[in-house]
Amino acid sequence: MPVITVNWWQGNNRQARRELVAGITDVVTRVSGCPDDAVTVIVRDVAPDHWGKGGHLADELRPRGGRR
Amino acid sequence: MPVITVNWWQGNNRQARRELVAGITDVVTRVSGCPDDAVTVIVRDVAPDHWGKGGHLADELRPRGGRR
Amino acid sequence: MPVITVNWWQGNNRQARRELVAGITDVVTRVSGCPDDAVTVIVRDVAPDHWGKGGHLADELRPRGGRR
Amino acid sequence: MPVITVNWWQGNNRQARRELVAGITDVVTRVSGCPDDAVTVIVRDVAPDHWGKGGHLADELRPRGGRR
Amino acid sequence: MPVITVNWWQGNNRQARRELVAGITDVVTRVSGCPDDAVTVIVRDVAPDHWGKGGHLADELRPRGGRR
Amino acid sequence: MPVITVNWWQGNNRQARRELVAGITDVVTRVSGCPDDAVTVIVRDVAPDHWGKGGHLADELRPRGGRR
Repeated sequence: MPVITVNWWQGNNRQARRELVAGITDVVTRVSGCPDDAVTVIVRDVAPDHWGKGGHLADELRPRGGRR
Repeated sequence: MPVITVNWWQGNNRQARRELVAGITDVVTRVSGCPDDAVTVIVRDVAPDHWGKGGHLADELRPRGGRR
Repeated sequence: MPVITVNWWQGNNRQARRELVAGITDVVTRVSGCPDDAVTVIVRDVAPDHWGKGGHLADELRPRGGRR
Repeated sequence: MPVITVNWWQGNNRQARRELVAGITDVVTRVSGCPDDAVTVIVRDVAPDHWGKGGHLADELRPRGGRR
Repeated sequence: MPVITVNWWQGNNRQARRELVAGITDVVTRVSGCPDDAVTVIVRDVAPDHWGKGGHLADELRPRGGRR
Repeated sequence: MPVITVNWWQGNNRQARRELVAGITDVVTRVSGCPDDAVTVIVRDVAPDHWGKGGHLADELRPRGGRR
């Protein structure tokens, strides 16, 4: 009965969340042997101005080689 | 000083959250012996299209005997 | 498919966790209308020296009228 | 690579979150010795009517000596 | 900079966690477009007697067709 | 009534946790204006073999200039 929580950027769409849920569920069932139906995935969209990295809000970070 | 987090569907109303908080606080104080005032409950509403079950987004699940 | 997480003191026993899980599941199904089977409760025991309150580790707090 | 999650009231502004992230990152790097860049802070704003304290929703609590 | 938390049964081994982390990171980078290095996965092993399902501790559930 | 959760490496000691809790509480009260007593900090020690970064378990990462 695994429960997975994903914290990532807001701005994704339904298709992205659909692939995320399908992909993670596939990995977890393969590794743990539990059935698909036992896997719960909670997706949390976080705004960049509510995410801190390196002491700064993420929307104030200077881009560095495409890092995000 | 228990901290309880509830992840459930969005779409609930104030009265439901009021009963949820009162009921959970009652259970936790009864079981743990701590005073009411020491119990914190955080309620998180999750949209069905941000919740995965069985590899699918919850709003795409086919209803099965009223299961939700 | 609510998921509830309880953070509380370590030192509880099986009977306490059993009552906690039964009681919370009862409240959540009553309030949300979902079936028992759809409710997941994750219980996390936290050591007092890993819990901070008022700027101090919880096992260094001076007792105040039985508050905990 | 510490990950810190802050649950607090909604109603804060960018400047408050900026100081929060900078301040927590500073504390964590000082205590753990890790570089700034390794610290992630996720800020979650919670509405008072989704926060329970003492068995009541937080926006229904009677003020008691400025406690909040 | 996605952060993923997995709550699952204790009793897994290093190889299972290695595959879990590699697989989830692969899914998340593919869906979000972020680099591998930006993905954090935190794995939490939960004891069955600290996990409630359907109002019962998970180690007291009667097996039903291999469901777990 | 902010609740802060810190996920970091196991291997810290009481003095480190004491400074962590004091420092974070100080930041949060300063930024939010709430009293010390309203701040809860939960410290979770994570084993490097339960932490994934860049698709690998953290204890298998090659050191890069002291990064951790």
